Amino acid sequence: MANLTPNSSYSLTIRFEVPNRPGMLASVVQAISTLGGSIGQIDLVEQTRDLSLRNIIVDAASSDHADAIVQAIKSLPDVKVLHADDRTFALHQGGKITVQSKVPLSRQSDLAMAYTPGVGRVCMAIAQDPDRVYELTVKGNMVAIVTDGSAVLGLGNLGPEAAMPVMEGKAMLFKEFGGIDAFPICLATQDTDAIVEAVKMLAPVFGGVNLEDIAAPRCFEIETRLQQELNIPIFHDDQHGTAIVSLAALSNALKLVKKSISDVKIVINGAGAAGVAIARLLRKAGATQISMCDSKGILSSDRADLTEQKREFAVEMKGTLADAMKGTDVFLGVSAPGVVSPEMVKSMAKDPIVFAMANPVPEIQPELVRDDVAVMATGRSDYPNQINNVLAFPGVFRGALDCRASNFTTNMYLQAALAIASLVAESDLSRENIVPSVFDDRVATVVSAAVQKAAREDGVARI
Amino acid sequence: MANLTPNSSYSLTIRFEVPNRPGMLASVVQAISTLGGSIGQIDLVEQTRDLSLRNIIVDAASSDHADAIVQAIKSLPDVKVLHADDRTFALHQGGKITVQSKVPLSRQSDLAMAYTPGVGRVCMAIAQDPDRVYELTVKGNMVAIVTDGSAVLGLGNLGPEAAMPVMEGKAMLFKEFGGIDAFPICLATQDTDAIVEAVKMLAPVFGGVNLEDIAAPRCFEIETRLQQELNIPIFHDDQHGTAIVSLAALSNALKLVKKSISDVKIVINGAGAAGVAIARLLRKAGATQISMCDSKGILSSDRADLTEQKREFAVEMKGTLADAMKGTDVFLGVSAPGVVSPEMVKSMAKDPIVFAMANPVPEIQPELVRDDVAVMATGRSDYPNQINNVLAFPGVFRGALDCRASNFTTNMYLQAALAIASLVAESDLSRENIVPSVFDDRVATVVSAAVQKAAREDGVARI
Repeated sequence: MANLTPNSSYSLTIRFEVPNRPGMLASVVQAISTLGGSIGQIDLVEQTRDLSLRNIIVDAASSDHADAIVQAIKSLPDVKVLHADDRTFALHQGGKITVQSKVPLSRQSDLAMAYTPGVGRVCMAIAQDPDRVYELTVKGNMVAIVTDGSAVLGLGNLGPEAAMPVMEGKAMLFKEFGGIDAFPICLATQDTDAIVEAVKMLAPVFGGVNLEDIAAPRCFEIETRLQQELNIPIFHDDQHGTAIVSLAALSNALKLVKKSISDVKIVINGAGAAGVAIARLLRKAGATQISMCDSKGILSSDRADLTEQKREFAVEMKGTLADAMKGTDVFLGVSAPGVVSPEMVKSMAKDPIVFAMANPVPEIQPELVRDDVAVMATGRSDYPNQINNVLAFPGVFRGALDCRASNFTTNMYLQAALAIASLVAESDLSRENIVPSVFDDRVATVVSAAVQKAAREDGVARI
Repeated sequence: MANLTPNSSYSLTIRFEVPNRPGMLASVVQAISTLGGSIGQIDLVEQTRDLSLRNIIVDAASSDHADAIVQAIKSLPDVKVLHADDRTFALHQGGKITVQSKVPLSRQSDLAMAYTPGVGRVCMAIAQDPDRVYELTVKGNMVAIVTDGSAVLGLGNLGPEAAMPVMEGKAMLFKEFGGIDAFPICLATQDTDAIVEAVKMLAPVFGGVNLEDIAAPRCFEIETRLQQELNIPIFHDDQHGTAIVSLAALSNALKLVKKSISDVKIVINGAGAAGVAIARLLRKAGATQISMCDSKGILSSDRADLTEQKREFAVEMKGTLADAMKGTDVFLGVSAPGVVSPEMVKSMAKDPIVFAMANPVPEIQPELVRDDVAVMATGRSDYPNQINNVLAFPGVFRGALDCRASNFTTNMYLQAALAIASLVAESDLSRENIVPSVFDDRVATVVSAAVQKAAREDGVARI
């Protein structure tokens, strides 16, 4: 608990009653603060001459920490805790998304137009001209968020049911940041062929497919086959979303240290979906010196255990991650907590760039190497420079849907990255500001425009 | 065109400009009315000293009729038609449903609770206790509307894309009348095994499955297999929705003519999904004398062409539909337009009950036999006694979801039918009022309660 900062993922609403006299609220606030809880809004729910009823929002650092805070308040004299709700679980009650009608159904004539008999004419129009499905149904703005639950966040193979909250959250992000309707498809299979078949069968309803939290190397084959067999764009966010935002951040970081992507030595640690996609996109952006590591060290060409994707990046060099990092300009981690030591960072070239993107705990805590790096980024929102896929996928899909792209190209990803990077003006660029905020409402618009332009250049735009 | 009544499924919004002087609007109204168009709302959009700009809503009887009306207005002196929009197509632009967040995502703390890192704790909670998927995700209120597009309305095998508008409309009805989130799943396959596999793979997201517009006899096998292989309730609306509402209406109609279901002779014309399900449910309700016909006549036991489901209702009698109808008390048609003649109705027993439910054009037009029947019902909203599945499926699913039924039983359907019938008080019962209005907001509530009670009796309720 000592190592963690209180944050909203362990947030409580505590409702308590105290005698209405000076000092009572102070005693509660003091108790929370002594234990290191972070206090948010405090509401006065009700007050009589004798009693005050309040809600207080408290962020804790862990479940145990939250319990300790509630116990501390309960043990205060004259304080009665009525209930303490975990805000994250409260928010998830009954799920986070809902399917709504766009038009009211309050009269017989509404039914006759939206349903039978009127709807029959619309069905016939689509049967006669199948392309009109994009005009007359939700397809043109609807994305399937497909998972098999095999690699849920950093938590592992939790299965399709336990993956649901992530997919619902993703659907919320699609709507909030891209204006896109998205729906969770959590499949009760982890068989590559079955997943491909399922998505192909579902395709009529969707204008695009976002693959999510599917384990490598299965994810590569699924993406490739769906791209070949369907005429709607397929995007594996764990790969391309991460790659796009990493490249955006890296290109701004390189401006700060005045180095060129074609000259720098880059180490990528983690050779799963994200690592491979980052490496591929960096190459497309001009990087020439990339060495990748997995949990066994550098992907050297004499290793017999490399998958097809890992072989793509095999090098002559052998050794550990520490060996790879010596003298390198850029470290990109999409691996595991704490695998990088301060010494390893100190062994890097001058003005090193370190992106420690393992979630939720990075490869190295930023405070440990604050003075040793030129630029540091993580996947976390509580440090500067958050590498967050939300910067990419809403705009990427917005662009693909709006130009009805038949598929995605690497050029579309590259242009999306450059568009994100462009939103941080040269004058605003600093070691703590290399990516725009996820709440910067220009992001999806410029990403969408860049993606559409690239799609037209690449001949995949259909309107 | 002469035979049809103007209705909302052929409704236009006509925007026109006229000189601002008396008589101009009258000339437009007169032109519409001469051609038999039905006028709805008239808006004054803008008025200057010289000009009036208006919108007028006009229901026509067909597309040709609509065109003729627009042409007639265009040909009036001094009238300028700016545009004439088909309201049904306008309503369908971009689809009719949308996926929304239930909670706002406007701050970093919202993201941290609804998405990473907070969501990870919710995922773990479900992984540890899979039943919590009902509490912490949309599953408990989410229904899949599954079709293969093989029997879309009465229009036939239009395929999954052209079926979309119906499925979206159905999702609207689920929300409006049952408070249920429902999502269209239009499958790009018409293979029974593939459909079963697809639905099984999708099941983690859904608390129930509504099969829709899937051709017979395939629909029977799909329903049976899914019921056996999944632990969520499966409902084929074309079968059971129709059967429930037909039984509800029939039981009230029988009260009017003072006959008992166990005594009456019943002819069902149409031996597809709806016909078979109606026959099965009527038997459960006590009917003993049912003869079914298909397009070749009575299902007689010596016919060699009967499917398994048709054999269930095979009788000794042979002959045509006309033969079957002689002396019968009840005719239930789920077949084709115009297959019943006034003579056939006149050959029925005293106080005959005729439900001509073929859509959109019934087996016999009600006006042809108005004085020959005791009670008449159709599937249409523009005649009395509309047999509309909307009376059944929202409440049926509401009940099944609320008690977390593992499947549906015939008893649940039977109780749903009796609950619908009960909403027409004895004192309100008349030959033109045997079913409640679809806008009667008691319907889903009483159906849900009846379904839950039956589910508990039958041991399929899980909470």
